[in-house]
Amino acid sequence: MITTGSQQGLDLSGKVLLDEGDGVICESPTYLAAINAFKVYSPNFIEIAMDEQGMRMDELETALEHNHRIKCIYTIPDFQNPTGRTMSLERRKKLIELANRFEVMVIEDNPYGELRFSGDRLPPVKSLDTEGRVIYQSTFSKVLAPGIRVGWICAAPEIMQKYVVFKQGTDLHTSTFSQMQVNKFVELFDLEEHVSKVRQVYRRRRDCMLTAIRREFPDYVTYTEPEGGLFLWITLPAVINARDVLLSCLQQKVAFVPGGAFFPNGGHENTLRLNFSNMTETRIVEGIGRMAGILKECMNTVAES
Amino acid sequence: MITTGSQQGLDLSGKVLLDEGDGVICESPTYLAAINAFKVYSPNFIEIAMDEQGMRMDELETALEHNHRIKCIYTIPDFQNPTGRTMSLERRKKLIELANRFEVMVIEDNPYGELRFSGDRLPPVKSLDTEGRVIYQSTFSKVLAPGIRVGWICAAPEIMQKYVVFKQGTDLHTSTFSQMQVNKFVELFDLEEHVSKVRQVYRRRRDCMLTAIRREFPDYVTYTEPEGGLFLWITLPAVINARDVLLSCLQQKVAFVPGGAFFPNGGHENTLRLNFSNMTETRIVEGIGRMAGILKECMNTVAES
Repeated sequence: MITTGSQQGLDLSGKVLLDEGDGVICESPTYLAAINAFKVYSPNFIEIAMDEQGMRMDELETALEHNHRIKCIYTIPDFQNPTGRTMSLERRKKLIELANRFEVMVIEDNPYGELRFSGDRLPPVKSLDTEGRVIYQSTFSKVLAPGIRVGWICAAPEIMQKYVVFKQGTDLHTSTFSQMQVNKFVELFDLEEHVSKVRQVYRRRRDCMLTAIRREFPDYVTYTEPEGGLFLWITLPAVINARDVLLSCLQQKVAFVPGGAFFPNGGHENTLRLNFSNMTETRIVEGIGRMAGILKECMNTVAES
Repeated sequence: MITTGSQQGLDLSGKVLLDEGDGVICESPTYLAAINAFKVYSPNFIEIAMDEQGMRMDELETALEHNHRIKCIYTIPDFQNPTGRTMSLERRKKLIELANRFEVMVIEDNPYGELRFSGDRLPPVKSLDTEGRVIYQSTFSKVLAPGIRVGWICAAPEIMQKYVVFKQGTDLHTSTFSQMQVNKFVELFDLEEHVSKVRQVYRRRRDCMLTAIRREFPDYVTYTEPEGGLFLWITLPAVINARDVLLSCLQQKVAFVPGGAFFPNGGHENTLRLNFSNMTETRIVEGIGRMAGILKECMNTVAES
């Protein structure tokens, strides 16, 4: 089913799957606007810690064993927002095995999957799904234009029927003009070639940002090294609040998103998300340099107090 | 605020205003897809009877006196869907007076207001609003193109802030391309001239349908005579179920919407909605003729049994 961007897929999943007090399992941290979309339906968020392989399956299993009202597992397996991390193949298999065993649905949100710069492409969780448990969603926003608001949901026919009914109540249908525009673009131009150009630009920007971070940031700052997507994730010493860092950065025209908002149950104020996709390499180097200076100042202030 | 069609305005009003068990007052009957949009938020629907002047204010006052969890009054004052009726000026004034006295919000849904064929234009309820109680919504769907999904909400800044937050969670924003298309159309072409043509076509079709109904339908069928919009409303004898009539009509390629679905609390299966906007006059005459034959057959069957 075509959706009005993949954000609408999240709202519809809330409408279809969640009643007040139902459990939603998500990565910790997870996509900020997914939290906001689900919150309307008053669920209970259960956060599962991540490492470099994505959501930790031992913690997921424990959570599923101990919570009996879990309706779904929300995951962004490829170049996750906000961490940039990718779930390993082994964990994808484990995820679907657990979803089947505990009879919960999986919402696989994959807006960034086409933006892989390095490493091997991994199969979507949906491709491992044998019981119609995975609701897969993606969008043209990251490969064509976010302004066009055309995404899609792919799910088993029985559950798709419910999405169709709720979609009608939500906005009747997605703009037929927007759908025609996307269709015409794909027909007249080479989308794959376009995406391949985007990948090259983003890869250079990621490399540039990582190089600058290695050179400029103090050792006590850790960061992810994503194989694709738009984001990388910074963890500061626990004594530093990223919101304070942001205020100083904004004065020097450097912006990022403080990480606390990506945790539905709060905390983790010493984290932040950097986006490498939208600035030239020169400005990335300049920005990271300014930020490094501010981070060192912040640590000095903390050390003195 | 721009919305993805006015249907999204309804979903957002549900998100902003309604918790489970809250009361929504609506006209009886009311717009089918508003019922579906609100139902997601599990409210209690309180239907207020209508007459040729629109929602009855004496019944509204009684409902407000007796229900203490009413959050909003949903109304389509101009050429209502499904009845085609228009709320009189006196009742519009009374409505805002009651909303103020009982401190409830009013959702004024006005997709058809520009499509007036006869009679005097009446001021929107919003224009009588002195306390920021009216959330006014409209759309380009009925004056330009339904496929383009561009509508808007007009409300007091304090409540608009809430709509903006929920809008972001619902679809981030309305397609910028669609907004540019509408803007360009209004800039390059004469929208008022276009609407005036649409009005003429619809007026002729309304007149044609009413003339055919007067000539063809049996006396025991009553109907509204709208001054604009797209719809007229038929009431059959209580012994006839419009869903049965529909089955026979579909065999003769005549379609309408059975009225029962427009009553959130059910009943009224002897009613139906006709749409005069989308067929040529020849086909309208032919369709009403076939329908009249079927209605007479239905009455005969009932009389014999």
